[in-house]
Amino acid sequence: MKAEIIAIGDELLYGQIQDSNSSFLSQKLTAEGIEVIFKTSVGDDINRIAEAFNIARQRADLIIASGGLGPTLDDVTKKAVVKAFKRNLIFHQEILNRVEQSFRKRGSLMPKINQNQALIPQGAKALSNFWGVAPGIFLQDKQTLFFALPGVPKEMRWMMENEVLPILKEKKPKHFILHRTLRTTGISESAMYEKIERLIDPKGEVKFAFLPAPLGVDIRLTIESKEKTRAQEKLDEFEQKIKEALGTYIYGTGEQTLEEVVGGLLSERKKTIAVAESCTGGLIGARFTNVSGSSKYFERGVVSYSNEAKIELLDVPRQVIEEYGAVSEQVAVLMAKGVRRLAKTDYGLSVTGIAGPTGGTPQKPVGLVYIGLAHPDGSFAQRFQFGNDRNENRRKASQAALNLVRLFLIR
Amino acid sequence: MKAEIIAIGDELLYGQIQDSNSSFLSQKLTAEGIEVIFKTSVGDDINRIAEAFNIARQRADLIIASGGLGPTLDDVTKKAVVKAFKRNLIFHQEILNRVEQSFRKRGSLMPKINQNQALIPQGAKALSNFWGVAPGIFLQDKQTLFFALPGVPKEMRWMMENEVLPILKEKKPKHFILHRTLRTTGISESAMYEKIERLIDPKGEVKFAFLPAPLGVDIRLTIESKEKTRAQEKLDEFEQKIKEALGTYIYGTGEQTLEEVVGGLLSERKKTIAVAESCTGGLIGARFTNVSGSSKYFERGVVSYSNEAKIELLDVPRQVIEEYGAVSEQVAVLMAKGVRRLAKTDYGLSVTGIAGPTGGTPQKPVGLVYIGLAHPDGSFAQRFQFGNDRNENRRKASQAALNLVRLFLIR
Repeated sequence: MKAEIIAIGDELLYGQIQDSNSSFLSQKLTAEGIEVIFKTSVGDDINRIAEAFNIARQRADLIIASGGLGPTLDDVTKKAVVKAFKRNLIFHQEILNRVEQSFRKRGSLMPKINQNQALIPQGAKALSNFWGVAPGIFLQDKQTLFFALPGVPKEMRWMMENEVLPILKEKKPKHFILHRTLRTTGISESAMYEKIERLIDPKGEVKFAFLPAPLGVDIRLTIESKEKTRAQEKLDEFEQKIKEALGTYIYGTGEQTLEEVVGGLLSERKKTIAVAESCTGGLIGARFTNVSGSSKYFERGVVSYSNEAKIELLDVPRQVIEEYGAVSEQVAVLMAKGVRRLAKTDYGLSVTGIAGPTGGTPQKPVGLVYIGLAHPDGSFAQRFQFGNDRNENRRKASQAALNLVRLFLIR
Repeated sequence: MKAEIIAIGDELLYGQIQDSNSSFLSQKLTAEGIEVIFKTSVGDDINRIAEAFNIARQRADLIIASGGLGPTLDDVTKKAVVKAFKRNLIFHQEILNRVEQSFRKRGSLMPKINQNQALIPQGAKALSNFWGVAPGIFLQDKQTLFFALPGVPKEMRWMMENEVLPILKEKKPKHFILHRTLRTTGISESAMYEKIERLIDPKGEVKFAFLPAPLGVDIRLTIESKEKTRAQEKLDEFEQKIKEALGTYIYGTGEQTLEEVVGGLLSERKKTIAVAESCTGGLIGARFTNVSGSSKYFERGVVSYSNEAKIELLDVPRQVIEEYGAVSEQVAVLMAKGVRRLAKTDYGLSVTGIAGPTGGTPQKPVGLVYIGLAHPDGSFAQRFQFGNDRNENRRKASQAALNLVRLFLIR
């Protein structure tokens, strides 16, 4: 089965936003063993969208379009469907009821303009939209399966997973492409490559891909097979080998986040933690509490951005700050001990650093970060030197802090 | 002048990497007043690439392709040019000399496989590649200008700016496309539409686009004109009219973030703020401190995730929590007052809510959030009801909190 993905929206052609929808759709289709042969982006123009649909029909068995289903005048995808597939729009009372209802749920009346969302091309099926108002469209035209999804990423993703994929699973030929992702942090792509190079065979059944990102490198294994169980066993075998080679650099698999892993470890051990943040400004607290159920182990956070806050809230002695500076090993340790004592938790975690772009000196350059950990048997701090990008330094510091807790818990 | 961008490479169709090349090319072309009408991605397949070239020739005056110019077998862009434009490849000794030289500069001998980089379609011009080896291609075929650039982003960018744009500046008609973005929060797309509908003329000079996102809707105005000053005046005029219609729903323009705007207002007025967060877990602190220079006005934050933290750190009386619940107007006000008193700032901002997915009751459902503000002359709290998505509720609460400060400062 060959697929074409069509992204609709003027903004995609101006280059100001990345088309993450098409990437998501590509990934999902590839995972189902469906080959994506073209991706097209087109503006909010009825004729050009219809042209893109017509070209796609000639070369693909499956077309998935996203965008242009909203109620406003610049949303013209349905009109393009009418033009390309030569079908009229039919009014569906039950769709209107659903649209009205979704407005009522939010306590507002449906604006009149949303009425047109109850119009669906003849013979098409409306796809439900869990997170929004505009229904999607599924149309089977001779050999072509055609889907139109909303452009809002959250709505599109839900609809793809819950409405489109079940239909595709039924219609497509059966064979599997399985992926497995291993997530690492604290090691560079090339250092990792050297450690596992011997496992990689470009002609082998299991393909390797390295996906580097600022907070860590993911390793993605891919296998294509008609037999799901055998494929899974093969992936298990490779996962095991890689884990032996990389050890604690691997913190999780699949979509697991570092905060979920650390939260899981704290939960298992029935331990609690509190955080004192300076340069990360609340980012670590925000990451801990991203995880549902985090109130079991995350007791509190303190964003001691000013020196006064460090002194008053965390009992860091003023003279230590004056002698060693707010960004120092000594202050990191005292912040961690302070927040642990204050919150009466098992662990206290702290971060102090120079995020940049200003505030650096030759001795303490931008990107210098100390992370402190206080625990029942003592305390310590570790020094990190990141780069020049403020935002990235803050994110990397939050990652290193969470990872320090993980490594301490599994030591 | 109408352009089509064609990105070549199998990896683009798997969805694992974002096609940043096409975004870059879009931006550069749009800035030159060249309208991008289609973007296409296609794999490393001679026939499909040639098909994409042929379709593009029929609808665009300018085609810019990137990728597939390397020396290896899977790089087939030049073969597709031969097929689509029916031109033979001609060997150029001077190109071979350059390729050999660029290997020598790096202290290595040219692998034999790179010889084919000296082959260029008949009548085409080779474009120089500052950062790499593969030359680009420029071809004029009847009405069509065709460029093929390398896929390596750094090479592609240099070649676009130094080789392609000078040619385009000479060939293109002189006119401009200008954009302006107005950023709103706290109003839905349809409600906004109703307020400014009368300003929108689909056939008018100024085009409207609505870009909805969970934290707010952006309005993008676009104008195409030969006269830059006139176009700018026209955009000014529309911006003014929209501002009159939408008032304080608009918080900024262009790429401005809400935290920058709020930070700017606090700076201007020489005011300071401290934050007490519950369900947002540090997100508001993280957003405030995202802005370089925020230490001038952001004094500290407290993530009072547990009741004990609210009681100990913020002096919220235990009995108020027991009587009204931690998620209540009363507690929000006391948290805001508490953190303001503690930090001795001009303002204290607080958030308490039920992010979900658990913890909701019929009286206090998931998504219920109270935001409190304490200021020199008093204090108040406002109630918000968001949806069911934990992550989105937290982000929306942080947005509403920042917006509440903004609205209070400009009241």
